[in-house]
Amino acid sequence: MSHIIDSEFYGGSWCTPEMREVFDDRKRYQRWLDIEVVLAGVQAGLGVIPKEAAAEIKAKAHVEELDTDFIKDELAKTGHSLVPLLKAVQKRCEGNLGEYIHYGPTTQDIEDTGGVLEMKDASKLIFRDLAKLESTLLKLSARYESFPMAGRTHNQQGLPITLGLKFANWAAELRRGMERVKDMQKRVFVGMLHGGTGTMAGLGEQAYPTAEAVMKELGLALPPTGWGSARDIVAEYQTVLGLLAGTVGRIANEIFQLARTEIGEFQEPLGEHYVGSSTMPHKRNPEVTEFVVAMTRVVMSNVQLALQSMVAEHERDTRAWRLDWHSIPESSMMLHKALSALVFVVDGLVIDEARITENLDMLHGMLFSEALMFQLGKKVGKQTAHHLIRDTILAATAPKGKTFRELLFENPDIAANLTKDELNELMDYSKHIGQSVRQVHDVIATAKTLGATDEEFLQC
Amino acid sequence: MSHIIDSEFYGGSWCTPEMREVFDDRKRYQRWLDIEVVLAGVQAGLGVIPKEAAAEIKAKAHVEELDTDFIKDELAKTGHSLVPLLKAVQKRCEGNLGEYIHYGPTTQDIEDTGGVLEMKDASKLIFRDLAKLESTLLKLSARYESFPMAGRTHNQQGLPITLGLKFANWAAELRRGMERVKDMQKRVFVGMLHGGTGTMAGLGEQAYPTAEAVMKELGLALPPTGWGSARDIVAEYQTVLGLLAGTVGRIANEIFQLARTEIGEFQEPLGEHYVGSSTMPHKRNPEVTEFVVAMTRVVMSNVQLALQSMVAEHERDTRAWRLDWHSIPESSMMLHKALSALVFVVDGLVIDEARITENLDMLHGMLFSEALMFQLGKKVGKQTAHHLIRDTILAATAPKGKTFRELLFENPDIAANLTKDELNELMDYSKHIGQSVRQVHDVIATAKTLGATDEEFLQC
Amino acid sequence: MSHIIDSEFYGGSWCTPEMREVFDDRKRYQRWLDIEVVLAGVQAGLGVIPKEAAAEIKAKAHVEELDTDFIKDELAKTGHSLVPLLKAVQKRCEGNLGEYIHYGPTTQDIEDTGGVLEMKDASKLIFRDLAKLESTLLKLSARYESFPMAGRTHNQQGLPITLGLKFANWAAELRRGMERVKDMQKRVFVGMLHGGTGTMAGLGEQAYPTAEAVMKELGLALPPTGWGSARDIVAEYQTVLGLLAGTVGRIANEIFQLARTEIGEFQEPLGEHYVGSSTMPHKRNPEVTEFVVAMTRVVMSNVQLALQSMVAEHERDTRAWRLDWHSIPESSMMLHKALSALVFVVDGLVIDEARITENLDMLHGMLFSEALMFQLGKKVGKQTAHHLIRDTILAATAPKGKTFRELLFENPDIAANLTKDELNELMDYSKHIGQSVRQVHDVIATAKTLGATDEEFLQC
Amino acid sequence: MSHIIDSEFYGGSWCTPEMREVFDDRKRYQRWLDIEVVLAGVQAGLGVIPKEAAAEIKAKAHVEELDTDFIKDELAKTGHSLVPLLKAVQKRCEGNLGEYIHYGPTTQDIEDTGGVLEMKDASKLIFRDLAKLESTLLKLSARYESFPMAGRTHNQQGLPITLGLKFANWAAELRRGMERVKDMQKRVFVGMLHGGTGTMAGLGEQAYPTAEAVMKELGLALPPTGWGSARDIVAEYQTVLGLLAGTVGRIANEIFQLARTEIGEFQEPLGEHYVGSSTMPHKRNPEVTEFVVAMTRVVMSNVQLALQSMVAEHERDTRAWRLDWHSIPESSMMLHKALSALVFVVDGLVIDEARITENLDMLHGMLFSEALMFQLGKKVGKQTAHHLIRDTILAATAPKGKTFRELLFENPDIAANLTKDELNELMDYSKHIGQSVRQVHDVIATAKTLGATDEEFLQC
Repeated sequence: MSHIIDSEFYGGSWCTPEMREVFDDRKRYQRWLDIEVVLAGVQAGLGVIPKEAAAEIKAKAHVEELDTDFIKDELAKTGHSLVPLLKAVQKRCEGNLGEYIHYGPTTQDIEDTGGVLEMKDASKLIFRDLAKLESTLLKLSARYESFPMAGRTHNQQGLPITLGLKFANWAAELRRGMERVKDMQKRVFVGMLHGGTGTMAGLGEQAYPTAEAVMKELGLALPPTGWGSARDIVAEYQTVLGLLAGTVGRIANEIFQLARTEIGEFQEPLGEHYVGSSTMPHKRNPEVTEFVVAMTRVVMSNVQLALQSMVAEHERDTRAWRLDWHSIPESSMMLHKALSALVFVVDGLVIDEARITENLDMLHGMLFSEALMFQLGKKVGKQTAHHLIRDTILAATAPKGKTFRELLFENPDIAANLTKDELNELMDYSKHIGQSVRQVHDVIATAKTLGATDEEFLQC
Repeated sequence: MSHIIDSEFYGGSWCTPEMREVFDDRKRYQRWLDIEVVLAGVQAGLGVIPKEAAAEIKAKAHVEELDTDFIKDELAKTGHSLVPLLKAVQKRCEGNLGEYIHYGPTTQDIEDTGGVLEMKDASKLIFRDLAKLESTLLKLSARYESFPMAGRTHNQQGLPITLGLKFANWAAELRRGMERVKDMQKRVFVGMLHGGTGTMAGLGEQAYPTAEAVMKELGLALPPTGWGSARDIVAEYQTVLGLLAGTVGRIANEIFQLARTEIGEFQEPLGEHYVGSSTMPHKRNPEVTEFVVAMTRVVMSNVQLALQSMVAEHERDTRAWRLDWHSIPESSMMLHKALSALVFVVDGLVIDEARITENLDMLHGMLFSEALMFQLGKKVGKQTAHHLIRDTILAATAPKGKTFRELLFENPDIAANLTKDELNELMDYSKHIGQSVRQVHDVIATAKTLGATDEEFLQC
Repeated sequence: MSHIIDSEFYGGSWCTPEMREVFDDRKRYQRWLDIEVVLAGVQAGLGVIPKEAAAEIKAKAHVEELDTDFIKDELAKTGHSLVPLLKAVQKRCEGNLGEYIHYGPTTQDIEDTGGVLEMKDASKLIFRDLAKLESTLLKLSARYESFPMAGRTHNQQGLPITLGLKFANWAAELRRGMERVKDMQKRVFVGMLHGGTGTMAGLGEQAYPTAEAVMKELGLALPPTGWGSARDIVAEYQTVLGLLAGTVGRIANEIFQLARTEIGEFQEPLGEHYVGSSTMPHKRNPEVTEFVVAMTRVVMSNVQLALQSMVAEHERDTRAWRLDWHSIPESSMMLHKALSALVFVVDGLVIDEARITENLDMLHGMLFSEALMFQLGKKVGKQTAHHLIRDTILAATAPKGKTFRELLFENPDIAANLTKDELNELMDYSKHIGQSVRQVHDVIATAKTLGATDEEFLQC
Repeated sequence: MSHIIDSEFYGGSWCTPEMREVFDDRKRYQRWLDIEVVLAGVQAGLGVIPKEAAAEIKAKAHVEELDTDFIKDELAKTGHSLVPLLKAVQKRCEGNLGEYIHYGPTTQDIEDTGGVLEMKDASKLIFRDLAKLESTLLKLSARYESFPMAGRTHNQQGLPITLGLKFANWAAELRRGMERVKDMQKRVFVGMLHGGTGTMAGLGEQAYPTAEAVMKELGLALPPTGWGSARDIVAEYQTVLGLLAGTVGRIANEIFQLARTEIGEFQEPLGEHYVGSSTMPHKRNPEVTEFVVAMTRVVMSNVQLALQSMVAEHERDTRAWRLDWHSIPESSMMLHKALSALVFVVDGLVIDEARITENLDMLHGMLFSEALMFQLGKKVGKQTAHHLIRDTILAATAPKGKTFRELLFENPDIAANLTKDELNELMDYSKHIGQSVRQVHDVIATAKTLGATDEEFLQC
């Protein structure tokens, strides 16, 4: 194989088995045949085609029983994407009953409706694992709701946060992503049976009853008009995936950064047989999250292709819609792999609580400078307080000097205004976590409220 | 000016006056000050700051009264994006009352909340014009619901459609875009007042009452947790704009293509003073739609930047969020200009009905070949019918030969099976429009149903 | 298979057999082993490892003889991308001679150098077919150098061009693309053997002699410093491919547009077994060019990923470089398929000369309006001439009216100033092709001059 | 102003004054007029237009003397991008001499040729600053060629490198970027004077002499054929800028990461009036590099737009080329600002040598584990050595335990085989920098060799 997703050696790192199954070549063909079978069944019921034709088509439309060599041969000869498959079924049908397969629709009807069924299946797998990840994050956020750690802005330690707040923040973003998936459902999970130029003329008098019954059976909605050239439906799926990729990428990247040698707050769980660097045995590389970030970039990049495809010309435009065959599977597969890898990492995330606490005091209390200025200011005036603290910071950053905390405690001007106990009280990280706990609770409550319709989505 | 949007000569072609106003430099500053004023008012009410401070801040926080030279000077010196503006207000405040401005929040709180207010205003302008366009399209679709025209797939004439169906198809896509705008509202129109690292510590004990009251007054929701590094909120806005750009681009591009010399079914309305090509006076260039397509590409392209920005590090990451200052205005301005230009074009669209009808019969009836094969097949068998028609098509495509219709009528094998009247009946375009009318009606009905909440959105 | 490129049914439409071979999974492994073999050979020559080790490694490093189940098993267990392959070779080596394989380099050295060898092979296949296409286009441009056709701007017929000029214009753009390929060679075709963090420490004292000899044998240059995190080398390859994709896409798209029913100047050659539309037998869909356009979009889109990967952190960053495994093969494969499909189309391009000529006079001479105004102006003044012609154009565009030419000839004001012969002379398309022929000749000459180094590139 | 680049408050952070000048609205107009003046001069010389017309046009074609209100008014009325400017000049010309301005070319000729002149000026400014940055980096790389620091892969400390090697690696990438700029020159710095559809018909008999003389005077080449729809020329400029943006972004991002609180190896230089965080005075935010990264993303993103524009239709396609007015200035301005900000940072880069050295031994010698295993292996066998070192690493990573170095020195099994002196010798970072120095020298030498043609480029 030549694409990395299908690599016999590396494919497993770029796609989950479940999602690979959704987009499997033969599965796709079976899906198309299933749609034809449903159509034939409905048309038989409406008296459009003979009942025995529908039965025969249903009996014979099994990919695993077809002559795939014949199909490939026909594909090579004709270049038509659907006819060879149908012919292979027809060959197996008794008499001319096979002629009633694909009675009325156009090729793209079957292929696009099949694509929507794929997106639906893919969405559910993704949604299921988003829910898993959210659930773990909510547990972690509750556990660490008041556990102080350094907040960082501009890559510099700023004010304290809590570890639980960090997890809750991820969970909240994840939840928004899940709601977007549910919101798109009404627009994206729609089929098409509108024929060559979208008028449904091919389905004759019975067009609407046919289309309605077929879509009902397939579990899709029938939109008010066809979407042969209205590719916003596919593009929305891709934007929703792109946004999820951003979220998955952010979480993975944060873990990756906090696993640096110089920070060491997080470590990825070790796989059972982890070997690590052969030449640098001391290294424990956060390779899973690194790779997750990489894959999410592809998903985000493919959004561009989907948007571009929206500018389709006339009633059908292969320049635009054919790329769905590339991008929907690629993005779905990579996002799902990235997501499930992240689930694995977060489930087993190694949290070095001691290191978090140690890092938090790396600057020996400088994170309290604002609070100190404020309290001191009440006694000596804002300006004087500001100078006192600023000078102490400068002294503390001189090479080989004393720490900020030491200098603070031994400064007579400060001692004159704040007792040691007051200073200690002021410089207690656990007192500077603001509304972290409340936010954690709010995120959990929001997840519960919005999650009420999750199951419904998974069953749709 | 150096960016084309602000060009003194061309700016008007890239941005509407209304949207330019939303993102005006000084308007942005006033917005930030308005947020500070609301905050001060709320904090005064909660006893956090003196009531007279809030009053004084409210009285002085007017951009047009500030010393902008001072602001620019401070900006150049310090590089800080907010402090110079605040200092300029403080300079104007009595005593030290100005010290209570920006009491507790961080810079990004004000700037991001301001950004959301901009996105909200921009969304409404865009939504209003989407509704205008939809309304015109629905009228056109009703008017032409059964007016036959050539459907085209692969750039080839295929089966007939109706002009009304084309308009309805655009309207249906537009409506989906409008629903996406409404759907995003609950996630995107949220403020932030969470402080340096997101704990709200700066707002003290009164953090939640403060934040809740401020957001209420600003007309925004308070999310369960801050979003300093959770940029999916901004990215969702951009994806929704990107999808709308795709729709606007598709419609404009279709008009552009159907305005070709060789097709001539549509023409753009002439501006009052249209000069056209100086060297080629016969040309009537569809330049407006051409330009609309160009602008929508920028909007779609910026989606990529927004998605990339989602992978922000730690509690704040300027590499990521600072680009919002570039992309939100740029995309909003270009989309709105593109949209309103399209509204202009569609409102005055010149529809050459005669040419549409003429083009439809350009192949002298070949579009009926399928129908002919079908009817003929009933008499002579499918295979024979297929050969008869195929041969006639081939004969008709020979250079300088007779037309398909002529050959058909003079063919004895066909005459033996189909009378002239039957042939004429079969080759009546108006009988081959399938469910076009029904689809038009469904699109109109859907727009009405979903449109019930439009006004609510415009008032939010 | 799940990615469309590897689809058992459709893969052939997305990749050529030759390019698929370049990126074949097992071919990649063999390439890596070949590099290890060269390295061992060089190291043996320099006395770094035993000569018999190099010989044994060379004898055993054949993918087809390795235990691939063992490799897959180890990959699944350890996740290491190279060690399992090396172990599989070592298992086959006598004694502990296998220990000398991969003596000193790091994993990425082998994989990146392998990647460059792939890019080199891919570049040559692409270049070869660019040259084929250029050659055909140059022949066509010479043949039609003075054959008039309608030039179109803003989708409107403007002034005449020649068909040869159109072909020459494509060829000129193609040639620039070919020169870019040759220009990148000196920067892109470079190997790496710089070890874990790029110091070459692992290769010991003999680092430079080793690296120089290895690269010489592999046909690559040794850059002045490693590029573990300097991914501009890979990104340049992708930008050059992206630019080529734009050119291939433009040519294909132009053919697609000129093959419209309403224009009909070009048609794609029919494949031997072309079936076309089953339901619309009159259609001859330009599906090949349509599909070419689609594929080129993926190639262009992947450029973004490569540029993003340039911002790699520290001495190695898997978030960045791992995507090369996705994008280099995907882009190379799709570009080559698109290119060879275009070669097929252009080689057999059906040019409907009669239709071109007919279209050119579709406006019955209006394309000469500028020339007419100019000549007439000499007699009656510029202003008057302008009005005369403009009025005639307006009259000619009225429905069911006479043609522009007819009106012109019967207009007494014009007849008073221009004789029929003068008018006919003026309205001779072949006299209005400007410097088309000269441009064709210049393009051919340029291709010849610059092409002098083509062969050298193909042999590099 | 509404675009951030033209913001009266923030514009200075997004664009340099020099580059703003290149793309200034009125400068653009003057450039177009300069081209018209050159054209008129050449045509007068060739006897195509009266000599006094050329003189008059030259005398009057000064933007600052034109009636810009008239221009804006005409632009608003007609929407034509060039005619109003020309009319404003004509208004000032004596008699009807102004009629000879723009004699023969088409609008796009002037505008595209003007665009190329802008790209040329922009390229030189960028190139000049690339050379500055390279020069500083080469000096730094020489100064620190053997100064050991931690090499990092996967965000983990790996083997040592030297600081000089890091700088050299950046310089080498920069040099490749500079060579790309020089390479593109021959394809990009070309003018156009090919008329409405590219045949040069408008220039009459004298077309070639005219075009050749005009281009010579403008300092541009005349390509073998026009490029109205061959936008690879513009796209190449954008890809070259995109690649440079990647390089600038990588360097800035690396500085940003190494300036983390927990690493602290680099700090940005302070601006004279740096205020830093008002609420967190201890922070020294690397905001300049952060912002550089942000801006480079826009430049990279715009590449996509340029590639897309390559697929232009027919002889001119405004959907495609009009975006150049957006993207060329935007990318050039942002890249130049990013680049010059980076020059500022690197020029004054604060290198904390002590911290670099401290970080290097953060793991107390674990970076030598490979070397230790190797030496120990010679005495006790590879396997045993591996276990000894691995166990010591594990013991050293236990919480509150002794360091790796301590454990090593007190381990009797190790002491039995390696003396303290041997151990110390082995664990000397300066002995593990491999070929860092040689690579630094090679990079410097390469820069010198390739730099020989830099001046020529800057003078072109």
